Amino acid sequence: MIIELPDIIAKIAPVDEAARAQAEDRQLQLTKPPGALGRVEALGNQLAAISGHCPPNLIKQAVVTLFAGDHGVYAQGVSSWPQEITGQMAANIAAGGAAISVLADQFHAEVIVTDVGMIAEAAPGVVNRKIAAGTADLSVGPAMTEPEALAALLVGYSTAAEAIEDGADCVITGEMGIANTTPSAALIAALLDLKATQVVGRGAGADDEMLQRKEAAVQRALDLHRVVFADPMATLAALGGFELAAIAGAVLAGAAYRVPVIVDGVISAASALVAVRLAPAVAGYLFAGHAGVEPGIAQVHKALGLEPLVDLNLRLGEGSGAILALPALQAAAAVLRNMATFEEAAVSGQSD
Amino acid sequence: MIIELPDIIAKIAPVDEAARAQAEDRQLQLTKPPGALGRVEALGNQLAAISGHCPPNLIKQAVVTLFAGDHGVYAQGVSSWPQEITGQMAANIAAGGAAISVLADQFHAEVIVTDVGMIAEAAPGVVNRKIAAGTADLSVGPAMTEPEALAALLVGYSTAAEAIEDGADCVITGEMGIANTTPSAALIAALLDLKATQVVGRGAGADDEMLQRKEAAVQRALDLHRVVFADPMATLAALGGFELAAIAGAVLAGAAYRVPVIVDGVISAASALVAVRLAPAVAGYLFAGHAGVEPGIAQVHKALGLEPLVDLNLRLGEGSGAILALPALQAAAAVLRNMATFEEAAVSGQSD
Repeated sequence: MIIELPDIIAKIAPVDEAARAQAEDRQLQLTKPPGALGRVEALGNQLAAISGHCPPNLIKQAVVTLFAGDHGVYAQGVSSWPQEITGQMAANIAAGGAAISVLADQFHAEVIVTDVGMIAEAAPGVVNRKIAAGTADLSVGPAMTEPEALAALLVGYSTAAEAIEDGADCVITGEMGIANTTPSAALIAALLDLKATQVVGRGAGADDEMLQRKEAAVQRALDLHRVVFADPMATLAALGGFELAAIAGAVLAGAAYRVPVIVDGVISAASALVAVRLAPAVAGYLFAGHAGVEPGIAQVHKALGLEPLVDLNLRLGEGSGAILALPALQAAAAVLRNMATFEEAAVSGQSD
Repeated sequence: MIIELPDIIAKIAPVDEAARAQAEDRQLQLTKPPGALGRVEALGNQLAAISGHCPPNLIKQAVVTLFAGDHGVYAQGVSSWPQEITGQMAANIAAGGAAISVLADQFHAEVIVTDVGMIAEAAPGVVNRKIAAGTADLSVGPAMTEPEALAALLVGYSTAAEAIEDGADCVITGEMGIANTTPSAALIAALLDLKATQVVGRGAGADDEMLQRKEAAVQRALDLHRVVFADPMATLAALGGFELAAIAGAVLAGAAYRVPVIVDGVISAASALVAVRLAPAVAGYLFAGHAGVEPGIAQVHKALGLEPLVDLNLRLGEGSGAILALPALQAAAAVLRNMATFEEAAVSGQSD
């Protein structure tokens, strides 16, 4: 698949508001009090808008497109975990031992784990699409060149697009990359015009001193790269990471193929924000999987009008928060497709 | 199955705190930062405590035990839906057209719908264990006699117990009964020593005047029956309903067989509260499925130390809120059973 970014952007159309209106009407005919299924109804209506027809397709074959990469900003002391874990966990995910492996198995989803920029060699089972062995340190220069960022984005796009062409009907974003909450915070701050202190959190266990180092690194990066922030691809290159760029590409693929995309935690949220800046209609295809504890994620949800579906205090990434929201989407589609109407079931309506 | 309430109560043991401690320890060995799966870890630990071993059993075969009944208090004008809907919806549930039918199918759970006190005849597919054709009006006298309430409770117990003996590994409570938020509110108020205004809500669409009639009926019932409120079976008989009594029995069965019970909305919450008053150790076997909009449900959750797993603004009943929480429990059990440890996956630990 050879495809270029302008072609992808041109392929993305707004969701279908007529199909949403049909779904809203159908909800009132189904055997339940009006609105009694709450947000499950709104989810179903959005799925109709995404697929362009009512009832929407059932969701039977979700794919977790999970991308792994390393980060030069690790040198600033922003993580308490050794950098070698990125490669080890990618291997663990491919071998079926990680949380996302177990959750995907439980929820009958496929996981595709792709090395787009790990320092380690890709273990067996990890797809090798490495652009480079880790980014440069975003607090002293651009994390990636623009061609590198674009290459990673296109890997993400083609990974998700091929999965969809093979039958996947829902894209779940996932990532693995030690230190990657730092570039995510920087990207969110840059694209939403926020300060480092408004977006930086403790990631996978930072103490107070580490938190201050993260904030300082992000603020230095914001000050250093501010001139490019009107350009989403240049911002992604300066502040992002290979896996963040790839996720942005996977999100674009979901929208291009009119398939729902469930966005995981703060890293995926940062990537989704990049995708929306590249093609604003993408926002209509997104669902926020999990409420995040990282402060940046709530900023993205607010900016994109997303309301998280699950809030179980997860802070793992990998796609684990997003996949926990999959059953609610599956339920929403099934309700519109399979519930009986009052007429079909010969059930009386509400009294006047 | 002939069984009596004292035998059931004697069979219910506290959950196993040693198994919970083992699970807590295992969570720290799994390939994720400590605590990174948030409440999913706590759920898994509770499942270990319930099953009495670590890792806990996977949850593969949930059963929705759904009970239907009618209510004499309907005469007080407390519902905007015609009473014939109870029987029509029970038929719709059995035929596969209701929300709970569709959700259970989606989540691979079985639904058993049992008539314990409908005015209508049980349609094909609805198990007929009718005690009487609706309760009496709780605002003018006891809703049921104590033998009637006990009989309904034992139907609920035996329904769930037989399902568990046939392989069910999780009990989800569900109900159908026009006007049944009114007896639920009365039961909750009685058992938690609250006023009608603290527990009565709009149910399936009450307007302001109907809300006042509901509050008045509940307050009259509380004033009328207060002398029995120290006795949970007498309180259930005076204020409850056939389906509420049956749900209390199903909850007791879950605890007696050491199987997790997911409690649905306000009606199930009222019934679970009765079960806990009959056998306090029951509380350890319960999960709150959905946050309720009816005010009584938050009171029960607080009293029983439960925190809802899902909050999608549902107000339907039938078990629909509880079944949406099933995937989180399944995920929690799978994490403890199937994730790799740091040692197994050769993943490095956190730096000091």
